[in-house]
Amino acid sequence: MDIKKYILGKKKIIDKALDRYLPAGSLKPQIIHRAMRYSVFPGGKRIRPVFTIAGFQACGGKDDSVMPVACGIELVHSYTLVHDDMPCMDDDDYRRGKKTCHKKFGEDIALLVGDGLLTLAFQVIAESRNIDVIKEISKAIGTRGIIGGQVADILGKDKNIEYINLKKTAVLFEIAVKSGGIIKGASKREINALGDFGRDIGFTFQLLDDLKDKDGYVKLFGAGRAKEKAEFLAKRAKRHLKIFGKKAETLLNLADLIAAS
Amino acid sequence: MDIKKYILGKKKIIDKALDRYLPAGSLKPQIIHRAMRYSVFPGGKRIRPVFTIAGFQACGGKDDSVMPVACGIELVHSYTLVHDDMPCMDDDDYRRGKKTCHKKFGEDIALLVGDGLLTLAFQVIAESRNIDVIKEISKAIGTRGIIGGQVADILGKDKNIEYINLKKTAVLFEIAVKSGGIIKGASKREINALGDFGRDIGFTFQLLDDLKDKDGYVKLFGAGRAKEKAEFLAKRAKRHLKIFGKKAETLLNLADLIAAS
Repeated sequence: MDIKKYILGKKKIIDKALDRYLPAGSLKPQIIHRAMRYSVFPGGKRIRPVFTIAGFQACGGKDDSVMPVACGIELVHSYTLVHDDMPCMDDDDYRRGKKTCHKKFGEDIALLVGDGLLTLAFQVIAESRNIDVIKEISKAIGTRGIIGGQVADILGKDKNIEYINLKKTAVLFEIAVKSGGIIKGASKREINALGDFGRDIGFTFQLLDDLKDKDGYVKLFGAGRAKEKAEFLAKRAKRHLKIFGKKAETLLNLADLIAAS
Repeated sequence: MDIKKYILGKKKIIDKALDRYLPAGSLKPQIIHRAMRYSVFPGGKRIRPVFTIAGFQACGGKDDSVMPVACGIELVHSYTLVHDDMPCMDDDDYRRGKKTCHKKFGEDIALLVGDGLLTLAFQVIAESRNIDVIKEISKAIGTRGIIGGQVADILGKDKNIEYINLKKTAVLFEIAVKSGGIIKGASKREINALGDFGRDIGFTFQLLDDLKDKDGYVKLFGAGRAKEKAEFLAKRAKRHLKIFGKKAETLLNLADLIAAS
């Protein structure tokens, strides 16, 4: 299979669904809806929701009942970016080649855009009518998960880099893949395997990002150790998928693509 | 019945449940959990979750299955206060006689405290295992509800005061009372009546607040018109409850207490 083509195809479907879920820019108050759309589009590869869809497929899922959760995961990712960019956090002026939300719309609107995207994420996820997925996602993105990683990042990268990479990045990949299995009604064993895979590949993703930016893990432990660890984790990630047999093909290809980037 | 005693009794139960739902201050990262608790306790009268419980009782509810949603409503209220107080919004240094969250813990932590309380709200509400209540609450507190009111407030009080009072305050009361009915599995007619009551009494609450602060509606239309409107709305609020007969006693008493404050 051509994995790059697969991702592009799914990105189109995800973007169409996101466009349907986001309030129109003509709806009042217009500025917040425009700012939300500005922050979500055009977006990147949509790799997290692609993982959700691939996780769903690994458990035998074929229909589009996974879409609300896949889009919810992307909306969560978008909210974290908007809040992370704000002056009291990373204070970034640009993201993906355009002005950050607060630079374009002001800090007050950016704060509310983040709040609005997080709230919309739960509204969209609720469309799946699956209470377990809401429980798992809210736990993963809370103060013992993603927000906890953000706090550790504020407290100081040097002491907590493993914890930060795990919570800020790996946990969202973990819950993204897992959610696909939960929606399909997979077994506990399958859901746990998806989670283990997602966490390892998410950590790999972050290490390779650190290598590109010469930041984080690389700054503290050097490029050699970071590369070694990334290779180890990408291999281990794939081993978690053995129980799925051939149905895990897409997830395996996604893992290889990330490891090669 | 002694309605003040009723409120105090419920406040105790709500505070105990909130204490159970909030992560312990000893859990890592400690600063965020301490800051969340600082922002939620001691709190005010807990009037919104009290309305949720009373709405539940008006539909015949007697057990404590309403508690997750009642606490979720209070966590939502707490998150809005933390974000509203921030420098890029109202820039307030004190709330209820103590330093605001960002003054005490810094802006970055306050941003994450708000995010954390909102996320926890959904996690707690999901404990009720009721997907409809999650859908309704996420809609009410989103950009077409509470957040929309906040945006209108930023854009200018003068033009939009009715809209702002409706969305910023009345909608949270509306969803608070309604949620009690949804949890009890009440009929559509009952749920709508609870919502109409909550919206009117919430608007009354805001008008009386404006009268105290000589702000908002009062500043624009004068105290006379504000008082008149508050009296009209409090009366209309109570009329919505006719269908519940005697079971609405607590809600009626709560309405009278608010109207007399």
